[in-house]
Amino acid sequence: MAEKEKLVPWSFTRRDVGTDDVQIAIDWSGICHSDIHTGRNEWGEINFPLVPGHEIVGRVTAVGGNVSRFAVGQRVGVGVYVDSCRTCENCLAGMSNYCREGMTGTFDALERDGKSITKGGYSNGIVVDQGYVVSVADSLDPAATAPLMCAGITLYSPLKEWGAGPGKKVGIIGLGGLGHMGVKFASALGAQVTVFSHSESKRADALGMGADDFIVTTDGKVFETHKKQFDLIINTVSAPIDLNDYLELIALDGTLVMVGLAPEPYPIKAFSMLAQRRRIAGSMIGPVGQLQEMLDFAARHNIGSDIEVIKAEEINEAWDRVVDSDVRYRFVIDASSF
Amino acid sequence: MAEKEKLVPWSFTRRDVGTDDVQIAIDWSGICHSDIHTGRNEWGEINFPLVPGHEIVGRVTAVGGNVSRFAVGQRVGVGVYVDSCRTCENCLAGMSNYCREGMTGTFDALERDGKSITKGGYSNGIVVDQGYVVSVADSLDPAATAPLMCAGITLYSPLKEWGAGPGKKVGIIGLGGLGHMGVKFASALGAQVTVFSHSESKRADALGMGADDFIVTTDGKVFETHKKQFDLIINTVSAPIDLNDYLELIALDGTLVMVGLAPEPYPIKAFSMLAQRRRIAGSMIGPVGQLQEMLDFAARHNIGSDIEVIKAEEINEAWDRVVDSDVRYRFVIDASSF
Repeated sequence: MAEKEKLVPWSFTRRDVGTDDVQIAIDWSGICHSDIHTGRNEWGEINFPLVPGHEIVGRVTAVGGNVSRFAVGQRVGVGVYVDSCRTCENCLAGMSNYCREGMTGTFDALERDGKSITKGGYSNGIVVDQGYVVSVADSLDPAATAPLMCAGITLYSPLKEWGAGPGKKVGIIGLGGLGHMGVKFASALGAQVTVFSHSESKRADALGMGADDFIVTTDGKVFETHKKQFDLIINTVSAPIDLNDYLELIALDGTLVMVGLAPEPYPIKAFSMLAQRRRIAGSMIGPVGQLQEMLDFAARHNIGSDIEVIKAEEINEAWDRVVDSDVRYRFVIDASSF
Repeated sequence: MAEKEKLVPWSFTRRDVGTDDVQIAIDWSGICHSDIHTGRNEWGEINFPLVPGHEIVGRVTAVGGNVSRFAVGQRVGVGVYVDSCRTCENCLAGMSNYCREGMTGTFDALERDGKSITKGGYSNGIVVDQGYVVSVADSLDPAATAPLMCAGITLYSPLKEWGAGPGKKVGIIGLGGLGHMGVKFASALGAQVTVFSHSESKRADALGMGADDFIVTTDGKVFETHKKQFDLIINTVSAPIDLNDYLELIALDGTLVMVGLAPEPYPIKAFSMLAQRRRIAGSMIGPVGQLQEMLDFAARHNIGSDIEVIKAEEINEAWDRVVDSDVRYRFVIDASSF
């Protein structure tokens, strides 16, 4: 897309397949809200022409000489980043999504050679270093798997980090592209799952995805009724909400996780934190190793995103609908239509 | 003290020694800022006449029939609370400071019989249930130990909870009554300790207490120079400061701990949290078991508060000086002057 315009078809050439590269024919590409934030210049300076997309599922079409983990024809995925410094303590610890030099985003990021700008998944193909490619089981629905590459890992990672499992009470704030993945994963992990929503409209969906309870928050009394009950609450809503209300719901040593890049700071009351020794934690996607772990978990538990498949010419409309929260629960582009 | 007045002498009678009670002759009583917040009606409704004080060191003068852990003549301490519900999951887990029904504060709290109001350490004596009394080693300076009962445990508890020790880089924001205990304990635990202060004036004190570094924060550049370096930062300052600046100093999975009940909410940026998967945690004094652990640790490492001893008639002046941060680093009242 060119500046301030809608997305239009554009042709470009990917790099040659290097010795550590995997060349991928893209089959499915999820639409993430961050595509739109970036594309609409809401997150600052961007590099045009922009090719968004970081929820990629496809098949290997070629591999470099050093690549033994992937073979031509294999189904694979690529998520939010395609490179990192590989030398900082976080990268060396397998936490390259938190690379101290900054990860290289799958689109609109300066490659580490300092020359080209990464171009993402709204495309027929991509070439990615093997260290940033994951395997997708044949048993998984590939279209429904695309959103796992960002939305899925964004929820799976904090659920694992903060111990969601049997005997734990987990709350998910908001049932959208992120939240619905949280419900599915938390439920499959064995936790007791509650969805917090501002309306009744998604109750049946939530329960169908595995939620045990659904709380409508328009009546503020619910924050009194349910206080000190939760071990973990993940906020997937990027609009401003009063996190202090949700902190009060958390029991001793429980955690409220932020996964969204809300533009305004959250006012946090010290008292909400001191009482019950509560915690707030950030979480940003997950490392490549955990992405693979999540996909293997999804295959064992038959977890996919609830999706609406669209063609390339419908992307602009889909972006508007994402902004209006008018999708249940993720758009996935059929990449054969590019 | 009577409403809106200065503290004045007042005589009252403690309860009789019950079967589980320890009667204590108070020798030393620390002055905590929360005495002043309460006494000056800054924390809402209080019960007059008020007897403040929750940093108590004294000697046992009588014990009830069920008491075997304490004997007459033994040196003991009492901290911020003297009772809790004893039946909630937190109390049963030994975390009675986070009692789900609310702990019973050492002063200005409704006793669990629902009748009387607790009266604190600015007094000759006190009667406390044995479950809320700790032993103070004879080798400790009793006056310098009094402030450990609140200021000490307030820092010791999060240092232990968040793993301060060898190889860990710990920051303490503010060198006051709380902060100076944090420096001493963090240093004794083997951590590398940095003090953040708004002026140079306390550098020598900080280094003398065991700090390895002292950073003056008036030049905002320090937040750039030291970014992503700390494992744990504890904010002891109750005045509003921008915690996002300090979050940027924290490395992967590091924690910023709040220990003060600042009146205004802190604006927290999501980005500061997501980057490096940082955490904010509250911490509120510590449970009785940990209070004993801290006192034993203090005895082994010869740790006490830096104090200025005053007499009862100097309390009003001392309160003003606490508000003006004009004390290095804690006032302790010689209770023989009551």
